[in-house]
Amino acid sequence: MKKVKVESLVLDKLNNSPVVILKVEGTKKILPIWIGACEASVIAMILENVSFERPLTHDLLLSMVEGLESKVEKVLINKIVDSTYYAKVILRDLTVTEEENEGYFLEFDARPSDAIILALKTNSPIYISNELYNTYTLQYDGESMDNDSEEFRKFIENLDINEFKKFKKGSQGDN
Amino acid sequence: MKKVKVESLVLDKLNNSPVVILKVEGTKKILPIWIGACEASVIAMILENVSFERPLTHDLLLSMVEGLESKVEKVLINKIVDSTYYAKVILRDLTVTEEENEGYFLEFDARPSDAIILALKTNSPIYISNELYNTYTLQYDGESMDNDSEEFRKFIENLDINEFKKFKKGSQGDN
Repeated sequence: MKKVKVESLVLDKLNNSPVVILKVEGTKKILPIWIGACEASVIAMILENVSFERPLTHDLLLSMVEGLESKVEKVLINKIVDSTYYAKVILRDLTVTEEENEGYFLEFDARPSDAIILALKTNSPIYISNELYNTYTLQYDGESMDNDSEEFRKFIENLDINEFKKFKKGSQGDN
Repeated sequence: MKKVKVESLVLDKLNNSPVVILKVEGTKKILPIWIGACEASVIAMILENVSFERPLTHDLLLSMVEGLESKVEKVLINKIVDSTYYAKVILRDLTVTEEENEGYFLEFDARPSDAIILALKTNSPIYISNELYNTYTLQYDGESMDNDSEEFRKFIENLDINEFKKFKKGSQGDN
């Protein structure tokens, strides 16, 4: 497992599909994930610190998780099958002690977009599997990968998203 | 409280906003609720029995509610404040017995669109408060209100959504 962070949200103009760019911590590798328009607008609001008066769906989900005495522990984007990305959201049941083991962690199958939104909203870590890291990440060869590095910004902006089309034949985002 | 069911999904063309039409059971009254485009597409998929390979956000929410040993008991659309509709989703904690009382039911603040989607997906009842029933419903004066009644269909289609604008000044759906 490799820890990643959300680097940016770009648009695959060819398919008019939003793409989340994940950056693997401690490396110069990135992983793009195609997502749906509705989830992209939620991620954009988070990245731009736009708040909303009423609870959005993920806020409702999180208030329920909290009300049911659980918390988001981490999320894992674990595989790609038939051009579809899969993720897991791992909850921790706060009513179970670590020693009890069973039921301490609960895993839920999710789309990466939902998993990423929940991680961002709860400041929980996002991981990708070693398989995704070894097979589907792209190397960045520039100097700095800082958010404010113009070089890296240009790399992201000019990313040939078609490079990744081999992983995404005929698929519609992570939907 | 009055029990309602989702009658249809229409478009407020003036504001290009989807509107859910709720019908109060045992009456000829309807309540329109403006919702967001993303939530409308989920409701449309449910009404048209379109299934999706991967879990959508509400499916993830419900799998977590189930995993945390709870269930959706009912939803209540309870008030309109400053042109915004409010709802509650009531969960039942399946680990608490009815006799224990405290914690048996858990209430969560929600947008009506999310509440309606969760009710539809779990076959749970939808209620509106007496205040909404008395103040914000519209009377239908035709004969049959059956889903297949052409007269009622026309009434819904020709509904002057501007009638309701007084309740919705400047608001953007239930967002």
